[in-house]
Amino acid sequence: MPNNNGNSKEPARISNAVIKRLPRYRRYLAELRKKGVEKVSSNELSRLMGYTASQIRQDLNNFGGFGQQGYGYNVNDLYGEISGILGLDRNYKMVIVGAGNLGQAIANYTYYYKTGFIVDAIFEVNPKMIGLRINDRNVLDYEDMVPYVEENKIDIGIICVPKENAQEVADKLCFAGVSGIWNFAPVDLEIPPHVSIENVHLSDSLHSLAYHMSKR
Amino acid sequence: MPNNNGNSKEPARISNAVIKRLPRYRRYLAELRKKGVEKVSSNELSRLMGYTASQIRQDLNNFGGFGQQGYGYNVNDLYGEISGILGLDRNYKMVIVGAGNLGQAIANYTYYYKTGFIVDAIFEVNPKMIGLRINDRNVLDYEDMVPYVEENKIDIGIICVPKENAQEVADKLCFAGVSGIWNFAPVDLEIPPHVSIENVHLSDSLHSLAYHMSKR
Repeated sequence: MPNNNGNSKEPARISNAVIKRLPRYRRYLAELRKKGVEKVSSNELSRLMGYTASQIRQDLNNFGGFGQQGYGYNVNDLYGEISGILGLDRNYKMVIVGAGNLGQAIANYTYYYKTGFIVDAIFEVNPKMIGLRINDRNVLDYEDMVPYVEENKIDIGIICVPKENAQEVADKLCFAGVSGIWNFAPVDLEIPPHVSIENVHLSDSLHSLAYHMSKR
Repeated sequence: MPNNNGNSKEPARISNAVIKRLPRYRRYLAELRKKGVEKVSSNELSRLMGYTASQIRQDLNNFGGFGQQGYGYNVNDLYGEISGILGLDRNYKMVIVGAGNLGQAIANYTYYYKTGFIVDAIFEVNPKMIGLRINDRNVLDYEDMVPYVEENKIDIGIICVPKENAQEVADKLCFAGVSGIWNFAPVDLEIPPHVSIENVHLSDSLHSLAYHMSKR
């Protein structure tokens, strides 16, 4: 779970529930932009996204009221505003730790889909992989990770190692100065309070699916 | 997001918030079991997991009250009970669609970590990959997926294809009779109401991380 630092200094205090929905709004707005759509009403967004129109108005009212009665929302403005709130109006430098299938999948994914999130290098312990290139990025020796992260001012460390090694990797990344950890290892990590963490617990997601299936 | 069918016929009506926490409880109980721990108090669970003891008691009271004053919870019983509630007291047959890095990572992950969730086969359109074996599983022609899913009574389809193809894959899986979809494509899919879906939206997770970092 992400650390919730309740002491945000931003103008509006937006609830975590709304924050969780913002990336989804942004995704739909990006699609509309791509199609050349310039404005969209809460009713249209409701049809697309499945939230009620009143929920959408409530959510979007949280940060300025650029919805106009009888006009709707300006797609570009709203997209830009949400991007800013999510901290997506800047670039993030990242390293991937673990060059196995998962690490490679994340490297592919960010390379093709995530502008603004740039993988600088991939670190690995397996000597057979060190020196390879994946999506134009070098696979480097895990031993050299700490100085690399320090010197290159890396923002985010992506943990794609077995769960037994995940805490040690997290400790080193935090020591080297990352401010965010994106963790794919199936374990809860301890990190210092000034570092943000987001876990992708595949296991929890699969179990949640099983629960919903078994309740039908 | 998973479909929430509010009309569960199970004895207790457990809130979605609690359900979301159950896999995490189960993970910690599994670790305790592995270490040979037989009983655990809400205070000990609190120290391990970071929830308050009163939150833990409230959560676990939802399904029978096997916590005993001064004794705590029987680790095995609690693990079994939670497994049952989550639908993990049975096996699930799964197919993976898309044998790229992500599909292979999921195949590895389920093979090594997820007893009870068995990948039967992996389907792929790329002729160079058809016929290969990944973790003892055959990579089969995507063209043959529908009859295979029907004949082998597959429960869950795992979508690891590019987002442009994800809806078509979901349609075929649902037509062929799966009751659950585990979707890794960065797109919201339309599925019939009798099928459960769980999305792993990497993009949303990364954006949530960026948000928490930018607010510090």
